Amino acid sequence: MISYHETVNEMYERVREEELSNVADRYEAQKLKCSFCAQGLSCQLCTMGPCRLSDLNPFGACGLTKAGVAVRNFVHRNILGASAYTYHAIEAAKTLKATAEGKTPFEIRDVEKLKWFAEQLGIDTSKDVKEIAKEVADFVIKDLSSHEKSKLVEIFAPKKRLEVWEKLGLIPDGVFQELLTAATSAMTNVDSNYVSLAKKAMRMSISTILAAQLSLEIIQDVLFGTPTPHEAYVDLGILDPDYVNIVVNGHEPFVGMALIKLAEREDVQRKAIEAGAKGLRIVGSIETGQEILQRVESPVFVGLTGNWITQEFLLATGAVDVFAADMNCTVPRIVDYQEKFKFKIVPVSKLIRLEGIDSGLDYEPEKVEEIAKKIIDLAIETFKERRKSVEPRVPKRKQKVLVGFSTEAILKALDNDLGKLVEAIKSGAIKGVVALVSCATLKNGKQDENTVTVAKELIKRDILVLSMGCGNAALQVAGLTSLDAIKEAGEGLRKVCESLGIPPVLSFGTCTDTGRLAYLVKVLADYLGVDIPQLPIAATAPEYMEQKATIDAIFAIAYGVTTHVSPVPPITGSEEAVKLLTEDVEKLTGGKVIVEEDPVKAAEKIYEAIMEKRRELGLEVEVKTKK
Amino acid sequence: MISYHETVNEMYERVREEELSNVADRYEAQKLKCSFCAQGLSCQLCTMGPCRLSDLNPFGACGLTKAGVAVRNFVHRNILGASAYTYHAIEAAKTLKATAEGKTPFEIRDVEKLKWFAEQLGIDTSKDVKEIAKEVADFVIKDLSSHEKSKLVEIFAPKKRLEVWEKLGLIPDGVFQELLTAATSAMTNVDSNYVSLAKKAMRMSISTILAAQLSLEIIQDVLFGTPTPHEAYVDLGILDPDYVNIVVNGHEPFVGMALIKLAEREDVQRKAIEAGAKGLRIVGSIETGQEILQRVESPVFVGLTGNWITQEFLLATGAVDVFAADMNCTVPRIVDYQEKFKFKIVPVSKLIRLEGIDSGLDYEPEKVEEIAKKIIDLAIETFKERRKSVEPRVPKRKQKVLVGFSTEAILKALDNDLGKLVEAIKSGAIKGVVALVSCATLKNGKQDENTVTVAKELIKRDILVLSMGCGNAALQVAGLTSLDAIKEAGEGLRKVCESLGIPPVLSFGTCTDTGRLAYLVKVLADYLGVDIPQLPIAATAPEYMEQKATIDAIFAIAYGVTTHVSPVPPITGSEEAVKLLTEDVEKLTGGKVIVEEDPVKAAEKIYEAIMEKRRELGLEVEVKTKK
Repeated sequence: MISYHETVNEMYERVREEELSNVADRYEAQKLKCSFCAQGLSCQLCTMGPCRLSDLNPFGACGLTKAGVAVRNFVHRNILGASAYTYHAIEAAKTLKATAEGKTPFEIRDVEKLKWFAEQLGIDTSKDVKEIAKEVADFVIKDLSSHEKSKLVEIFAPKKRLEVWEKLGLIPDGVFQELLTAATSAMTNVDSNYVSLAKKAMRMSISTILAAQLSLEIIQDVLFGTPTPHEAYVDLGILDPDYVNIVVNGHEPFVGMALIKLAEREDVQRKAIEAGAKGLRIVGSIETGQEILQRVESPVFVGLTGNWITQEFLLATGAVDVFAADMNCTVPRIVDYQEKFKFKIVPVSKLIRLEGIDSGLDYEPEKVEEIAKKIIDLAIETFKERRKSVEPRVPKRKQKVLVGFSTEAILKALDNDLGKLVEAIKSGAIKGVVALVSCATLKNGKQDENTVTVAKELIKRDILVLSMGCGNAALQVAGLTSLDAIKEAGEGLRKVCESLGIPPVLSFGTCTDTGRLAYLVKVLADYLGVDIPQLPIAATAPEYMEQKATIDAIFAIAYGVTTHVSPVPPITGSEEAVKLLTEDVEKLTGGKVIVEEDPVKAAEKIYEAIMEKRRELGLEVEVKTKK
Repeated sequence: MISYHETVNEMYERVREEELSNVADRYEAQKLKCSFCAQGLSCQLCTMGPCRLSDLNPFGACGLTKAGVAVRNFVHRNILGASAYTYHAIEAAKTLKATAEGKTPFEIRDVEKLKWFAEQLGIDTSKDVKEIAKEVADFVIKDLSSHEKSKLVEIFAPKKRLEVWEKLGLIPDGVFQELLTAATSAMTNVDSNYVSLAKKAMRMSISTILAAQLSLEIIQDVLFGTPTPHEAYVDLGILDPDYVNIVVNGHEPFVGMALIKLAEREDVQRKAIEAGAKGLRIVGSIETGQEILQRVESPVFVGLTGNWITQEFLLATGAVDVFAADMNCTVPRIVDYQEKFKFKIVPVSKLIRLEGIDSGLDYEPEKVEEIAKKIIDLAIETFKERRKSVEPRVPKRKQKVLVGFSTEAILKALDNDLGKLVEAIKSGAIKGVVALVSCATLKNGKQDENTVTVAKELIKRDILVLSMGCGNAALQVAGLTSLDAIKEAGEGLRKVCESLGIPPVLSFGTCTDTGRLAYLVKVLADYLGVDIPQLPIAATAPEYMEQKATIDAIFAIAYGVTTHVSPVPPITGSEEAVKLLTEDVEKLTGGKVIVEEDPVKAAEKIYEAIMEKRRELGLEVEVKTKK
């Protein structure tokens, strides 16, 4: 049993039978860990190294300390995550601009949101919508590329946070300058003060989330519609091998959206049928799937298969024709699956290449329609061959879910009255709100088991959960974002969910929706007239895996949010670094890290942190220890 | 004996007596290396890891191969180096702009060069000089921040190179976009094709060197004067403890230049004398020192102490009052020297922080005069205390050198007739030209020993050497950039040097001058009407250490230059990665890496590579094996 999900376990058997490399077996083979690396005490930056630091040998050859090495390694990872979000934001802004110029198949779907965004940016909204869109795109690109203070951060940060950040020197420039500053500082013999390094990561995270990420999600709403609650299906049972199936995988939904639009055309479906299929379908995988799932209801879009660990097992169903890979999260060894299961991997971003795959149909806004056409033609051709030679084996289970709980949708569920949520929190029916933004990892057990356990334990304690990222897929497939899950909630939360008709875990989106979430938190804090650290909220990443997660986490801390992470990040070799992130930083930003690998204990600690906030707000008079 | 230089060895004794942590002892303590890390086969990116790859366990948990891990680790380092050069370029452009606006103590010193640069950029040069300067600054910042093809690259790349790069998909966007692309690609589960990863590093290196680095050196010439040949002094003997001594250390000369300007004032000198000193002096260290050394002749600037490994030993002389640290190369443990030797470390860049030093007088163009004043006041105060309580011990040796061989200066030495150099090369008097761009490391022996040996072996073989970076300081202190060194050259080179009155090793500048060098090579290639890989030139980094060196090296390969590096870079765990960089890439770009740790063998291999180019050009009819 490698996964919480029975469908993945079922497919794992097939993968084993076929003797294919897979993530579970590779993880097992790599299980013996180097303790220096695992604790963040290995440095490989320069040719005086590699160095391994310890109490007996406390300096690198350069003279850097254990805390310095551990935090600097952490900053290196943050640089990658910050870059990825920014890359995505630039691409979104370019897409908006090209769309306004009539060069893409997309349209300005949410004009109201565009105007709202433009208004925030100080752009005249009385102009033609296309002109507004162009100016918005230019504003965003300029701000992200800037070497002066970021205007987007100034606009979207809560006022009280700006005051705190001002004191700490954390008001960031545009993300380009912050990247340059952080990356240069994290070189050999530059910044050897681990607190300063951590602060630079925080500054960078603030522009990344509030400027890059928030803008890109707003732009995607403008282009593809703001998510609204609706039913959808997830898990591997959504696949039907008798259809031409195009899996869209990654983090950027552009090509996926173009594919859906094209697939909705009758002539395309007819072509698929003429090839012997029942039709042609688009299948969501990982965050590209999630971006589409939360926005699109279409007969040609069948739902979401699961998160990144599901990827190889999804392909082993033998039901896939094309795997269109954008941006993040394409598992390297899926190249070994192509021949056996007769599908084609097509990179749709220049970011993605694999062994033996040296080119792609790389996304550019102006070319997306042509790219989608080529992929559809390729998929139909591939289908003929696949149907002849591959025996499909598709697990039956599929799960109905409710998705699309964007900030706007949540407000609408409350009849646009935040007071309702506040009342529920004040009364204690809801103790607090936790954002679960997570990846998936095998480090602490089976795929998604920790994530599911943490979420279940939280809702049991009357904590409303908003889920994002691969962790959202975990909870969707596990059934927790469905109305059926209301029965698993504590009494108070159960009643609230029943009265509003919402699940106890609200499917909020992808890991890229951290910015959107930050905005929701800002709205709540402003409504109450308090600063973020006072709110009875927290964040959790029960199975964080990669570098977008680390920049999200460091942002949460800068934003003043108590943030649980698991597995233990590779900084534990330095007591000072651990103390900084789990204790000292709270005195500065009001946020801090809770490190706890046991999911039940983690939920309890998160609950305790929230209860502490409630007591400070005067909402609780004594310490309750609800189990 | 830890160094090639007797002065450093002498001071090492004092450091040992004082029981201070120092780079040699720390290196020794870290000598036992992890073979996975040393070979590039350790990956610590995600929480499925850390992973260690081997023939028995050839995949990371994600599925990445040995080649993928080794090259991706290498790309991570390149991202840092590219960021540092770009950071510097942005700061230089901002300084130019502020200067044009009258907000700095600097002036537009080389108007001719400004106009030349503006002309290349298509800027109208008939305007007021200040207006031209502003437009130039804006152009550079815009290009570096751009998400479209870099215009600077298009302008400064040799035409034949552009054709080669076009075919390979290597024409880069602005460096911001290239950083985003490379960093995102180098995340977990993104680009798993090691050739593609290496190509992304090359693209990034092209905008880094030809857009960021070249622009910044031109701007520094405009502001501080284009280097011209002149005599100067290097090595620790330049220090006089009876003066107030301000060491300027790092890579950015802005604060150092402002300090010199201020120190030249009589009232400042008088103040120092009133404090009991003979006067006040500015002392160059590392690249900031080198930037100043190549441009400035001033009674208050005494020369260059040495490269980064010299740093702790310089401070142990007890002759320093303030150590003003900008940008790169501030060794972390110098904080331990402050109390003992009564000097003050002052960060003059927000990049630099050290343990216990949480703030600085961080450079901003508009504040530089004020910063310089504060440093001078602090230094004079510190002098009083130092002179009372610290026994100075300053080694006697100082070395006269010739410095300032910029591209323009070299052309001038040839009476502005490249034909003279070409004739010398054609006749075989000079077999070829090698750029030595290097750091310093203890990995393969004593400080600078490899660098000096490689240079000596090359000039012995009639190869003219241009030296840059910490390796330049190595050769300066060793006396090879002096006219006295002519006698160490082979017969042909000796005659050329004698007739032109130049040393066999030309002090070309800092590691940041790679762009300037690339331009010289372009001029030569254009003159001959050939592409770069045809030229009898090569590059060598006999003691590369950090991340600016790796981006310089990957650029050299993209530029079509045969490039020797030592120590062996941490990619040897993958045969494929080694083959790519040492063999396969030559078929693509014409450049390649020679890995050779023995300095004599290295020189021989470089000589052979040059002789091969000569044969291909028809300059040699048979294989000569000159020793």
